[in-house]
Amino acid sequence: MIRRKGNLYVISAPSGTGKGTICAELLKDPVNDFSVSMTTREPREGEVHGRDYFFVTREEFISNIEAGNFLEHAENFDNLYGTPKEMVLKKLERRHNVILDIDVKGGLQVKKAMPEAILIFILPPSLTELRSRLEGRGTESAEKVEKRLGEALNEIRLIGEYDYCLINDDLDSAVENIRSIMTAESLRVPESVRQIIRKYEQEV
Amino acid sequence: MIRRKGNLYVISAPSGTGKGTICAELLKDPVNDFSVSMTTREPREGEVHGRDYFFVTREEFISNIEAGNFLEHAENFDNLYGTPKEMVLKKLERRHNVILDIDVKGGLQVKKAMPEAILIFILPPSLTELRSRLEGRGTESAEKVEKRLGEALNEIRLIGEYDYCLINDDLDSAVENIRSIMTAESLRVPESVRQIIRKYEQEV
Repeated sequence: MIRRKGNLYVISAPSGTGKGTICAELLKDPVNDFSVSMTTREPREGEVHGRDYFFVTREEFISNIEAGNFLEHAENFDNLYGTPKEMVLKKLERRHNVILDIDVKGGLQVKKAMPEAILIFILPPSLTELRSRLEGRGTESAEKVEKRLGEALNEIRLIGEYDYCLINDDLDSAVENIRSIMTAESLRVPESVRQIIRKYEQEV
Repeated sequence: MIRRKGNLYVISAPSGTGKGTICAELLKDPVNDFSVSMTTREPREGEVHGRDYFFVTREEFISNIEAGNFLEHAENFDNLYGTPKEMVLKKLERRHNVILDIDVKGGLQVKKAMPEAILIFILPPSLTELRSRLEGRGTESAEKVEKRLGEALNEIRLIGEYDYCLINDDLDSAVENIRSIMTAESLRVPESVRQIIRKYEQEV
């Protein structure tokens, strides 16, 4: 088809919705790529700098914030995490889609930095179902589960900021739906074409 | 998924691009519906009023124009043709997608009357290919073929007004691509949700 740059996708979902599995499935397509985050946390056993994360000091991280080098960044448990802008742009230029698997707060930062980003929100079938998935993990206290449900509802309340939403009640159809979104977005008449035409129309 | 109204699709393409075949394929899906046009031309053998067309007098047609009852209308070979608005709206309310197989001029009228309409433009692989398809029909004079190619280029020049464009170099993939567009559009966070949220945000 008409060849052009890749698209930037933000995929967000409340914890327990199955976002990780969906993103892993999407990344099997060679046209889709992910981004490597920068972080101040210590590397874990087996993690490789530049593949899993860019491991940097807090000072380096902060100077990157000040230079406006992040599409989004956040602090979690005293560690800073961020998505470096330049690498994402390079991948898009190479006609790869880039998929950012980040939370709603990060998604909104990305939308602000790059309004052309496409935001997809994955919903659990219900909060009851989400509760039983979280409890099924067996790793989180009842109190922690309730806290996560509260966070889930707060994230869902921001769905109006997203472009697309879908319910993950079946992994295969959720993945298929996102693939359809990606196909459709690749067929959009580019905004650049529209802008050029509008510019001339204003002269008429 | 989240249930809501159907979407209105305009599908346009230069003559000879295969739009009719593609639309027929899409209409096999029970969620997709077409609209019955109103016309002043005489019914042909076997045509049924209300199924193939609504056959009306020129006076009736003109009073419908004056009442604003059409999404679009045009005159061809001294006959008037138009898409009645109310019937399209009823089908959308019943959660059917409505597909309008109309030319670019009509498509732009529809977009003006219903900005939420989704406009899809189907391109031929090339004008050379289009020429050989038109010649292959064996029904049109060389002069007529050249005229159609000129019209095709004029239509293509308006592509910036359309939302999506795709090349019909293979029927199956063209149909699949349009199905992806329809799936994606059904997963969009509705504009109504966004408007409600924006209204409250303005008060903050």
